[in-house]
Amino acid sequence: MSKPRVTWSLDRGRTAIVVVDMQKVFCEFDGALYVPATETIIAPIAALLECARAVEVPIIYLRHVVRGDGSDTGRMRDLYPDVDQILARHDPGAEIIGALRPQPGDVVVDKLFYSGFHNTDLDTVLRSRDIDTLIICGTVTNVCCDTTIRDAVHREYKIIALSDANAAMDYPDLGWGAVSAAEVQRVALTTFAYEFGEVATTEGVIARLSGRAG
Amino acid sequence: MSKPRVTWSLDRGRTAIVVVDMQKVFCEFDGALYVPATETIIAPIAALLECARAVEVPIIYLRHVVRGDGSDTGRMRDLYPDVDQILARHDPGAEIIGALRPQPGDVVVDKLFYSGFHNTDLDTVLRSRDIDTLIICGTVTNVCCDTTIRDAVHREYKIIALSDANAAMDYPDLGWGAVSAAEVQRVALTTFAYEFGEVATTEGVIARLSGRAG
Repeated sequence: MSKPRVTWSLDRGRTAIVVVDMQKVFCEFDGALYVPATETIIAPIAALLECARAVEVPIIYLRHVVRGDGSDTGRMRDLYPDVDQILARHDPGAEIIGALRPQPGDVVVDKLFYSGFHNTDLDTVLRSRDIDTLIICGTVTNVCCDTTIRDAVHREYKIIALSDANAAMDYPDLGWGAVSAAEVQRVALTTFAYEFGEVATTEGVIARLSGRAG
Repeated sequence: MSKPRVTWSLDRGRTAIVVVDMQKVFCEFDGALYVPATETIIAPIAALLECARAVEVPIIYLRHVVRGDGSDTGRMRDLYPDVDQILARHDPGAEIIGALRPQPGDVVVDKLFYSGFHNTDLDTVLRSRDIDTLIICGTVTNVCCDTTIRDAVHREYKIIALSDANAAMDYPDLGWGAVSAAEVQRVALTTFAYEFGEVATTEGVIARLSGRAG
């Protein structure tokens, strides 16, 4: 079966940027959950945020943080046994990286698992601004970005995933062969485009937001 | 980074089988959304259900169905423009295939999008039985099975995805090269095992449920 790719018309009065987990723990070389590909997405995200601020499109940052005392990490701790150390609320690693530091007026939403919507106020933040379209960037593509995208689509948001501003990571061989970040990215972007919404480049979205697109 | 794979101890008094979307529309050759790999998972699912009935583990079937009048298909219709025809509630294609027909005592949960949890009573059905572990099989691996798994894990369920009883499908080239069902399956199973819970074979789970496992 084949079908046309989705393209949304972008109303910047009803659009928000969602920056997923661009925290030191994932983006800095000595971070406990360092994702090397994040290095390549910082510049496009910075350019997008500069554009968004210029045209007054709201910016929402997600952060994956837990209390640190084990009270809010059940399955997450089963999967990442050291989560209470590495994602603890007051650990410097939980902060957004300096290159993308939130500015006054931006919104930071803390979440305790992969999805930006699960047990957070993200939906309220978006609805109160009458947002219906989300531009998603950040890390990692197939986990926190993907889960947030799925939850957004189920809540009837139109999503645009940025092909060059979502970062994936390599997986070791868990029984089905090692999987490279590039392969994860290829499968995730294809799945987003076929099943969940639009996939676009950062440059293309900046042109549309700033009114320069055809 | 590497970390051990998760294995849950299986308490059959707190376990349920979730059979995702094994409907005629996905599983029969002339179905509008036919997924060829479903053919290979019918026998393992049938064996699992026979075991589950013998040891009194509850069986929950999910069905993807919509009203058919467009009232409940917003983003889903954007992505699948003919969804109101092909997944309409009373269309014969919406039925579970004969080989896996629900039996008295099984529970059928209808959902209007990919997730078995979104706007359904699945969580109540599970909690009322004190279920904490879900064995997930069905189709398609990276969409309805995957979204249901993500939602289950966020709700603190322990999930076991069956490597040989979840069926994926090929994608055409949407800008990043064509993606085969085998490649989707490999990336999805690896992601499940690393980020979401346990991945096991149907045979292995049947042995554990029936008390034959070591």
